[in-house]
Amino acid sequence: MNDPRVITVKKDILAKNDALAANNQLIFKESGVIVVNLLSSPGAGKTTLLVKTLTDLKSEIKFAVIEGDQRTDNDARRIMETGVPVTQINTQSACHLDAGMTFQALDTLDLGSVDMLFIENVGNLVCPASYDLGEQMKITLLSVTEGEDKPVKYPKAFRVADAMVLTKTDLLPYLDFDPDQAMEYARKVNPAQKRFRLSAKSGAGLEEWYQFLRDLTNGS
Amino acid sequence: MNDPRVITVKKDILAKNDALAANNQLIFKESGVIVVNLLSSPGAGKTTLLVKTLTDLKSEIKFAVIEGDQRTDNDARRIMETGVPVTQINTQSACHLDAGMTFQALDTLDLGSVDMLFIENVGNLVCPASYDLGEQMKITLLSVTEGEDKPVKYPKAFRVADAMVLTKTDLLPYLDFDPDQAMEYARKVNPAQKRFRLSAKSGAGLEEWYQFLRDLTNGS
Repeated sequence: MNDPRVITVKKDILAKNDALAANNQLIFKESGVIVVNLLSSPGAGKTTLLVKTLTDLKSEIKFAVIEGDQRTDNDARRIMETGVPVTQINTQSACHLDAGMTFQALDTLDLGSVDMLFIENVGNLVCPASYDLGEQMKITLLSVTEGEDKPVKYPKAFRVADAMVLTKTDLLPYLDFDPDQAMEYARKVNPAQKRFRLSAKSGAGLEEWYQFLRDLTNGS
Repeated sequence: MNDPRVITVKKDILAKNDALAANNQLIFKESGVIVVNLLSSPGAGKTTLLVKTLTDLKSEIKFAVIEGDQRTDNDARRIMETGVPVTQINTQSACHLDAGMTFQALDTLDLGSVDMLFIENVGNLVCPASYDLGEQMKITLLSVTEGEDKPVKYPKAFRVADAMVLTKTDLLPYLDFDPDQAMEYARKVNPAQKRFRLSAKSGAGLEEWYQFLRDLTNGS
């Protein structure tokens, strides 16, 4: 296995985010690629859901992935095992990806041969919500281990998200967590949001999630 | 039950952090209060560990708590049920507490009658690591649901922490999580750090944690 590509972000490019996001959006549109920006707390299961999704759908949808972390290329290495092209961005001190970092990463990807690009943001329920990357859609994950009230405690991360995914539902029998209450909090913050409940480990709920992604790439 | 005190932080006080932290430190020293700044991802169990700790030790140690969240006073309400004085800070858009917000909250607490002040920071493994509040000690929590590699992916949050607490160990039987590997990653980032493994739910490991807090208040 080769090393994944790693981009180390310098401070001088952390600027002019909105203009750069608009430029990225144009590039994505011209390439006909659907771009999804994944937000969550650290450890909510973004990479695990991605690995499962890519493995199960890569024969139907041509994927690529950009991974954002402060340090390490651990996540990119996990994605590489699926055979899907991946680029790791290391943000160093920054608590979020921005449009400039994303633009840098685009150089490393052949967008013309990609249907759907997942951008896995730095694990953080605050900062990434404020930085558009040019994506069509933000999706925020919440794991059942985090407590029901996260949507109201960190409302922006759920307000900006077109969809929300409740992850790790296989752990529900071992937790005092009410998934209906969590969904109700999310609904309060963002009534129009599409919501999923699933476990990448047990497979429960995955088919509805997969159909959602298929519909996205079909433009429906 | 009365409403907890809530301070809404305005943007113009988010400045001069280091000078304000030094000032806070002086106040804490003069009051003879030990101040612990708790860091973690959202949902790692900071409030649950606090509630358990306060309940079990409040007859021995005089506690007070400052709660930091973007929105809601949910956590302060949970602390209030223990009978320990608590002040909620709502940071609105900010992804961390800072020394100015902390100073504002001190006005609401009678520090002269407090042995140990816990400051529960905003759930975030990035931003809070860069802002001293004047505390004697930072402690970073990692829950076993988050994955072993968080100390190397978010190294600063673990490098600045004098102690680390691995939480929710009661869930280990249901997870693919190697606690020794997590501890090894933390050791790599911060060899001198004191490390605990515990479950606030089952009670496993709590006695060592409690003895650590007792020793802190005894100046040992």
